[in-house]
Amino acid sequence: MWPDRRLLDLLGIELPIIQAPMAGATDAAMSVAVSESGGLGSLPCALLTAERARAEIGVIRQHTNRPLNVNFFCHSMPDPDPAREKIWRSRFDPYCAELGLDPSSTAPAPGRAPFNDEMCDLVEELAPEVVSFHFGLPEPRLLGRVKRLGCKVLSSATTVDEARWLADHGCDAVIAQGYEAGGHRGMFLTDAVDPQPGTMALVPQVVDAIGVPVVAAGGIADGRGIAAAFALGAAGVQIGTAYLLASESTISGLHRAALATARDDGTVQTNVFTGRPARGLINRVVREIGPMSPDAPAFPTAGGVMAAIRAAAEAAGSSEFSPLWSGQAASLSRPGSALELTRALAADALERLGTLAPRH
Amino acid sequence: MWPDRRLLDLLGIELPIIQAPMAGATDAAMSVAVSESGGLGSLPCALLTAERARAEIGVIRQHTNRPLNVNFFCHSMPDPDPAREKIWRSRFDPYCAELGLDPSSTAPAPGRAPFNDEMCDLVEELAPEVVSFHFGLPEPRLLGRVKRLGCKVLSSATTVDEARWLADHGCDAVIAQGYEAGGHRGMFLTDAVDPQPGTMALVPQVVDAIGVPVVAAGGIADGRGIAAAFALGAAGVQIGTAYLLASESTISGLHRAALATARDDGTVQTNVFTGRPARGLINRVVREIGPMSPDAPAFPTAGGVMAAIRAAAEAAGSSEFSPLWSGQAASLSRPGSALELTRALAADALERLGTLAPRH
Repeated sequence: MWPDRRLLDLLGIELPIIQAPMAGATDAAMSVAVSESGGLGSLPCALLTAERARAEIGVIRQHTNRPLNVNFFCHSMPDPDPAREKIWRSRFDPYCAELGLDPSSTAPAPGRAPFNDEMCDLVEELAPEVVSFHFGLPEPRLLGRVKRLGCKVLSSATTVDEARWLADHGCDAVIAQGYEAGGHRGMFLTDAVDPQPGTMALVPQVVDAIGVPVVAAGGIADGRGIAAAFALGAAGVQIGTAYLLASESTISGLHRAALATARDDGTVQTNVFTGRPARGLINRVVREIGPMSPDAPAFPTAGGVMAAIRAAAEAAGSSEFSPLWSGQAASLSRPGSALELTRALAADALERLGTLAPRH
Repeated sequence: MWPDRRLLDLLGIELPIIQAPMAGATDAAMSVAVSESGGLGSLPCALLTAERARAEIGVIRQHTNRPLNVNFFCHSMPDPDPAREKIWRSRFDPYCAELGLDPSSTAPAPGRAPFNDEMCDLVEELAPEVVSFHFGLPEPRLLGRVKRLGCKVLSSATTVDEARWLADHGCDAVIAQGYEAGGHRGMFLTDAVDPQPGTMALVPQVVDAIGVPVVAAGGIADGRGIAAAFALGAAGVQIGTAYLLASESTISGLHRAALATARDDGTVQTNVFTGRPARGLINRVVREIGPMSPDAPAFPTAGGVMAAIRAAAEAAGSSEFSPLWSGQAASLSRPGSALELTRALAADALERLGTLAPRH
């Protein structure tokens, strides 16, 4: 039925659609809905404690026995850099003054801990069928533990170089994350944002470079994009932004409202929220401090300084200081449940594929 | 045979492939080869005098009676800005010193005149079947003359806004130029490069927004990309970089050699060569002066200061000061004649489309 079954067979799923793990935006309910639909539900753990992750996975396992993807970041934690922090903090003093906030009230950034022994223990205990990583792969010792469990391992490549590296280091499939994608870019062998290739160019070049199945990501939000991904040689897709508008998404009403009127040219890559480039809708702080600021402290520490400003703005109904993660195709998304969305995406893709065959 | 015949019927061609007009890189020979293959050959006139354009079109008409696309830029010429020119010139003094050149020897930029009455007279005289524009459309009076001849009119959109504008102002088809595309971006309602959407995101959003056929461009260099474009709802493709490696291309040996080893992440948008953003391979002048310099004088005047430096570098076998236009998928291109290339692209696309239909 699907033109390429490699990803379906590898992951034990029925529909070649992976729900992108989006930290802070989805929880167990989304994973359950997508896995029950036949796609691959994902639980983003980057912002969770091991205890919280255990609880979420427990909920998921109660509601579905279908394959689950558990996702972790695997960055290196930076050394503190007080001088840089101070410069960065001063950039936000005018906003504190404007909003009547004490500049010293800013909180530490949300704890984005990289995949570690504690999380690896959790993986061993709960044995998710799929473990995906962002920002490369964890150290060989930890990766070896995951691989020995039989979990299928995925990670994202933003260039052909990164795809080769991931395939060489044991990934069972590689997500080719094009420039269009929302949220954090998975880049780990380069920090140059400007040369990053778009999905249309990246996917076939990655397909030619590696032997494992390629999952296309970036700018895909409807059946046409899924059909196009197969045309380019991908064996499946990872979709993020379209799921942000699903009813199970836990994003704020402000974020949801901004996505509902998003334009094709309404996003940029910005490092102002975390220190790493991530695509989101353009708002005031992105315009005025970013989009890519050389002053931003290293990931994940940049965001702390903005916490109080963001809270005050959101309390006043403004999303001008909130990270409004979005890819470039938000306007193609439709609200509804994640289960309905996944099934509609798959049905539309199959219908689209059926219209493409040459008629003789 | 093709899943969408709208572009074929509109332009009177057999294969839904438009050879991108690339000023300075192709002449009559390329247009003849592509039109004879069944695609749409294009003659870029942006760097030609009316006299030279007349001669080239004469050669084309001698060798083929198939449809021809004649392409023009339609920017506004900027007022001279000596202060900015002086600052810009000073940026290149170190290179002049390094290469032993007199900084005052720099030449004016190549004359890129916008579409004007003289060129419009030529169009009336020679009646090309298709006239395409870059940077929007010419003033209504000139556009009206072209439309009254019955020429089909095309132009490039880099956003949904631009696509709507072009469709509303009389374009018979709109080229959706994604971020991946090489050479000058056609942007004309915005000058913001960072939010420009990639092909995968742009094409379906443009298809949804306008009623005329959409031609996909950017990152498409083989049959997979063409099949993907149809999946996204396009009625055809415009391909540039792949034709730069064809035997009829008039690019330098240095440019050809650089393209032959191009990487997926080896290009950026840069304004250092002309003052407008254009995608090319990263070389020394792009790295050191650009990629996007706020000092660059307005298009098309920025390049003059570099002429002597470029000539001296090229004479010494270096392309570090040459514009090496390229999209993000150069590595997918294969050398050969433009006729063979066009036929192979079409055959590969049809074969690819045939593999995508769901098998029940």
